[in-house]
Amino acid sequence: MQIVLASKILEANERNADDNQARLDEAGVYGVNLLGSPGSGKTTLLEKLIPALKDRMRVAVIEGDLATARDAERIEVLGVPSVQINTEGACHLDATMVAAAMDALDLDTLDMVFMENVGNLVCTAGFLLGERLRVVVLSITEGDDKVEKYPPMFRHADAVLLNKADLLPYTDFDVKKAEAHIKRLAPEADVLQVAARTGDGVPACADWLVGRREAWMAQKT
Amino acid sequence: MQIVLASKILEANERNADDNQARLDEAGVYGVNLLGSPGSGKTTLLEKLIPALKDRMRVAVIEGDLATARDAERIEVLGVPSVQINTEGACHLDATMVAAAMDALDLDTLDMVFMENVGNLVCTAGFLLGERLRVVVLSITEGDDKVEKYPPMFRHADAVLLNKADLLPYTDFDVKKAEAHIKRLAPEADVLQVAARTGDGVPACADWLVGRREAWMAQKT
Repeated sequence: MQIVLASKILEANERNADDNQARLDEAGVYGVNLLGSPGSGKTTLLEKLIPALKDRMRVAVIEGDLATARDAERIEVLGVPSVQINTEGACHLDATMVAAAMDALDLDTLDMVFMENVGNLVCTAGFLLGERLRVVVLSITEGDDKVEKYPPMFRHADAVLLNKADLLPYTDFDVKKAEAHIKRLAPEADVLQVAARTGDGVPACADWLVGRREAWMAQKT
Repeated sequence: MQIVLASKILEANERNADDNQARLDEAGVYGVNLLGSPGSGKTTLLEKLIPALKDRMRVAVIEGDLATARDAERIEVLGVPSVQINTEGACHLDATMVAAAMDALDLDTLDMVFMENVGNLVCTAGFLLGERLRVVVLSITEGDDKVEKYPPMFRHADAVLLNKADLLPYTDFDVKKAEAHIKRLAPEADVLQVAARTGDGVPACADWLVGRREAWMAQKT
């Protein structure tokens, strides 16, 4: 019989997330938690963002999936370090898993670490990983009602990337409506449109990430 | 402090799911658990399927969402009974929630009840609700790798509906590859293509559902 103390798990996770954050801060590494539904385009976005960032920053990726090492393999060919976590059924990354993945990286040689979470618009919201930036990727093919229907995910978002914007002409997605819902739940969140498949909006997205890291560095010192 | 016994929860849920199934069986109501990612198009599909089914069967819908009654409202205008469950944070429906929703329905006046689960490709997989048919809705915009990456969801699927097929020309989705992955995990599962938004494939999908219920009725007696 397995005994799980629900409240203790979250407490312990937050302690571990604080530890991760301290380790990253000390090494000057900006942690970015990338969240979103399955198939919202998180990995494809990284495949496009990394070439745009690589000459400006030293980047690594921690990939979280239930099964397979597909995503880490997709990142590896880009020439940046990647670590795959297989959660074996768990619906979200947690700070302990990320700590183990961080052990496999040489933090002193890095400026930014993406933590691509398991595709899930619910469970991943509650578990801090040690990130300094929480970015939710929402594919416009998911519909403009998703912000209202999954509030915990968006409430603590630092940014929402509206991905697959190339498909806007073929869907009923109302950008203004989605933006209004985001504004209500997370007034400070940046909202960017991007089309990872075609590359539209990727350079702006890369500039924005570099800017966020610079602001963090300036504030840190 | 809250103590949660993980193994006990699943056991208790399966007992409750058996009870739900017995209640539905006795009333001759075919339970359909509708699963899939957020924005895979479950509700839109129901909006199109119900008018196609309504003259052939008496249908009701149980809607599961973290927040809002949007989905049940969308169903109500179709003139069939609907019950909204708000899980208040829980990432999946469970059998107890569905039992409460069943209390709000007059089962003796029904032939089929859809249980539209919370949008989630992970957590919903483990919780039986009392259904006789598990249907996974996979939007082709999510990518053809999702079956391999989220195996628990597909392993116990009775059918996979490849939705948003109208967007196939604008994406890289490989239908053959997805079908091969489904075949490997769930060799018995039916795979249907449908485009809920345009209505393409909806009549075939309705026929298929009627056929599955008839086969179940024949087997029951």
